[in-house]
Amino acid sequence: MKIALAQINPVVGDIKHNCEKIVKYIEKAKKEKADLVVFPELSTVGYPPKDFLFVKDFIKTNEEMINKIILPATDEIAVILGTVRKDENKNLYNSAFFVYNRKIIEIFDKTLLPNYDVFDEKRYFSPSSQIKTVEFKGVKVAVNICEDAWKGYVFEPSANYSVDVLEEQFKLKPDIFINISASPYHLGKHRTRLGIMKEKTDKYGIPFVYVNQVGANDELIFDGNSFVLNEKGKEVIRLKGFEEDFKVVELQNLEDFEELPELKEDISWIYKALVIGVRDYFHKLGFKKAVLGLSGGIDSAVVAVIASEALGKENVLAISMPSRYSSEGSVKDAEILAKNLGIDFRVIPIEPVFKSYLSVFNKDGNALGDVAEENVQARIRGNYLMFFANREGYVVLTTGNKSELAMGYCTLYGDMSGSLAVIGDLYKTQVYELARYINREKEIIPVSIIKKVPSAELRPNQKDEDSLPPYRILDQVLKLYLEENASVEEIAEKGFDKDLVRHIINTVNKNEYKRKQAPPVLRVSPKAFGTGRRMPIVQNFKA
Amino acid sequence: MKIALAQINPVVGDIKHNCEKIVKYIEKAKKEKADLVVFPELSTVGYPPKDFLFVKDFIKTNEEMINKIILPATDEIAVILGTVRKDENKNLYNSAFFVYNRKIIEIFDKTLLPNYDVFDEKRYFSPSSQIKTVEFKGVKVAVNICEDAWKGYVFEPSANYSVDVLEEQFKLKPDIFINISASPYHLGKHRTRLGIMKEKTDKYGIPFVYVNQVGANDELIFDGNSFVLNEKGKEVIRLKGFEEDFKVVELQNLEDFEELPELKEDISWIYKALVIGVRDYFHKLGFKKAVLGLSGGIDSAVVAVIASEALGKENVLAISMPSRYSSEGSVKDAEILAKNLGIDFRVIPIEPVFKSYLSVFNKDGNALGDVAEENVQARIRGNYLMFFANREGYVVLTTGNKSELAMGYCTLYGDMSGSLAVIGDLYKTQVYELARYINREKEIIPVSIIKKVPSAELRPNQKDEDSLPPYRILDQVLKLYLEENASVEEIAEKGFDKDLVRHIINTVNKNEYKRKQAPPVLRVSPKAFGTGRRMPIVQNFKA
Repeated sequence: MKIALAQINPVVGDIKHNCEKIVKYIEKAKKEKADLVVFPELSTVGYPPKDFLFVKDFIKTNEEMINKIILPATDEIAVILGTVRKDENKNLYNSAFFVYNRKIIEIFDKTLLPNYDVFDEKRYFSPSSQIKTVEFKGVKVAVNICEDAWKGYVFEPSANYSVDVLEEQFKLKPDIFINISASPYHLGKHRTRLGIMKEKTDKYGIPFVYVNQVGANDELIFDGNSFVLNEKGKEVIRLKGFEEDFKVVELQNLEDFEELPELKEDISWIYKALVIGVRDYFHKLGFKKAVLGLSGGIDSAVVAVIASEALGKENVLAISMPSRYSSEGSVKDAEILAKNLGIDFRVIPIEPVFKSYLSVFNKDGNALGDVAEENVQARIRGNYLMFFANREGYVVLTTGNKSELAMGYCTLYGDMSGSLAVIGDLYKTQVYELARYINREKEIIPVSIIKKVPSAELRPNQKDEDSLPPYRILDQVLKLYLEENASVEEIAEKGFDKDLVRHIINTVNKNEYKRKQAPPVLRVSPKAFGTGRRMPIVQNFKA
Repeated sequence: MKIALAQINPVVGDIKHNCEKIVKYIEKAKKEKADLVVFPELSTVGYPPKDFLFVKDFIKTNEEMINKIILPATDEIAVILGTVRKDENKNLYNSAFFVYNRKIIEIFDKTLLPNYDVFDEKRYFSPSSQIKTVEFKGVKVAVNICEDAWKGYVFEPSANYSVDVLEEQFKLKPDIFINISASPYHLGKHRTRLGIMKEKTDKYGIPFVYVNQVGANDELIFDGNSFVLNEKGKEVIRLKGFEEDFKVVELQNLEDFEELPELKEDISWIYKALVIGVRDYFHKLGFKKAVLGLSGGIDSAVVAVIASEALGKENVLAISMPSRYSSEGSVKDAEILAKNLGIDFRVIPIEPVFKSYLSVFNKDGNALGDVAEENVQARIRGNYLMFFANREGYVVLTTGNKSELAMGYCTLYGDMSGSLAVIGDLYKTQVYELARYINREKEIIPVSIIKKVPSAELRPNQKDEDSLPPYRILDQVLKLYLEENASVEEIAEKGFDKDLVRHIINTVNKNEYKRKQAPPVLRVSPKAFGTGRRMPIVQNFKA
């Protein structure tokens, strides 16, 4: 039997478009004489469809499009289609339809519904009540959906699942496991995922086909990286990372294949993830052009590089908006970077508007240098960028990093203005790492930008470390608290000052109100600011 | 047996404060010779604690404070305490501790965990695996928690519960049901809630004690309105709405009590809800003073009234920020309103700053009248208000309504700047209703404000209805779509033009990116913009 893996990038809610794309790949599979073509989880509606699942017209359209567009294309080929279905009691299921010759011949519903971090699947779906397989052309296929294959490897309290889907399916003596997924990426996720599936395959001794979604939707980035493991648990087929891909594999001789060399999951994966994150945000919404403030600092430099890669250099406009407190080097560095990238660059000082604010709020129009004046400078810049957005159709990218967002070291309606927080899930120290990666072959980001002492330049001689602990300490504490859920005691035991740890944690918690109003943050860590972290604003917990 | 109902207003995460408050009420109950005092759901940590439940130090502090502060206060009195507990497998439970003489003598865990709308309880809690009662002083008490009593009355797909807690508890022959709740308010909720509990009591024929949380946390407002039903299902004891309250009731002679007259749940309840919503946002976070823009329109007028009531007139600053497009009447009307309320009032024209923007972006400094210029005016106003916030310690209130938020008829970083969206869950037509309620005895809001044709005044002769359908139509369609989840067809059948319905729904969906960055919206409807409605931003569904 020949199986085609169709690793597609659907658009959430664009059901017709997704179904047409699916048919395109079905035709391709037919051409390559495949017997079966496999699509990712929820391919017809995109993942995550969220509360659209409660919209009646959404479910109805999905049903209609499957019947009208997909079923007629399945003559003489079988399709495993990730989609949603509603039963007669109005319960929704996250399902895999096994389709052949214009008919749905079997339905597999997802059994294990993740309801932690970014996942809300118990909000929407009922779990499967049946363990099954389907026989097709003499091959017994056990289809399961994403989390179904993760039993025993998820340590969230809500993932205390009572059923082991693969274990139960294996009792039905399948010849192959096929898992369809929409498994969001974070650094290290692919290694984890592949490792788990290898262990499971090793245990059961039958091939494992894994088809993952690719592309970005809101904050979530799907890396693709679909694969086939042979009966020995060796990875013998691999699809691309961070782009659509398609491959056909002949089941019969999988054991003869050589194992592919291990992929090294390094900082380059984050780069690719953020590039597709930006590209899909724009292109799926029909936008083309991005504008950002280029301060001469490292954060905006890295975002400019990512945006150019994602959208094309001709579609990126960088604006230097110096104030009376900006260093001369800042504008110059920004200009060199823009030239290196070949992107549009303009300098528009904020002084005239800043002066007008001072004339309104200060008696003699002189600066007092208080936080109100610091923030209004950031806000004038935000307003400048939005002016371009509103007048010329640009979309604004924000350039803040995770360390700043965590500590509230950012200005609401100022540098937080924009549609997408490109590096909002990268600690400052990771931003440096990414800059060095970008410069690995030649100096794209001027070294002076990388070497400069971080500063918001909102008052004379300001430095980030006047307000924040040194980033190399801060970032470690933040990671322990946010991603590893460590207690004050546990963090202190790693050699950090306990009062400092408390201060950092309390500052993070206190600044939830700012993050509530932040744009979506592209997620590349196991715990990003966004829907995966739900904290109250009105609270008074002291660490 | 004498039972005390302690309807308290805890602060999320301020565990020590909450425990001390609980002890204060325990002492009061002792003084009034109560045998048992009952507190709402999750009283020690406040509701909703959200992802703080995953923070180890949070759970540890809760355990310590219960042991240290609450248990020692329970000599010779029993306490039903809503709290959270972690078992030896690290599973969390939403629990009611039955405490007596310094000991936890029974634990009731919540069985039915709501996981719809604003609720995420399956994210955090494991369900109870036991149905039980506790015997105390010869009375068999069946304790249950909030949703446990709602079986059969929740029509969300995820509320397809398999257990009927009251039905099962009743088999154990209890003498009384006690339900502890944190049941968030929306208009009509009290009537629904009371109706359900009356039906249940009618069925089982034993008294029903219902103790609800009161106060606001983030977007959620708890109305209190706790009650006791006698064995005939008659409401014989009632606690106050929207404030802390405490009452002691003697169980023995409940059937002799007269039924209390039915409460009329009208627009005044929304007013009270929003007042406590504002007050708790400020006071729980330690803020005192609010600033808002007073445009001369009805939305900001209503917010000014609510803020004055919530915080005291001496703590509210209203700023009129006229532009070249503002009508003269607007400033005057705003001034009269401020005088009527006795709040601080200042006029600060935005012209100097607007001019400076025009000089930066337009060749000759003349206005072009495009949307960029419209929006920058709103943004200057937002920046003015934030300037006061940053310099003088005010907190900014936004004044947008639900109709605007739905349609994206609002400016990001402009009129959307602020910490709390006071009337963001009221349709424009409800804002009028609230204004008339406010003016029921005397003209607090000048009639000219109420009679004025709605306008953003961002360009000459602008009217809301140039951009939006008439509010009386728009608001009905929005309600059907957002709150009643009606399809295009179903809405059109009620007499609305199908193309207009599609246009409205698609506009709502398209503007999710703005709402992502809106401040928390005080929730007074069954479906508010906020955590109860989770829609994707990057999507392309067309109704």
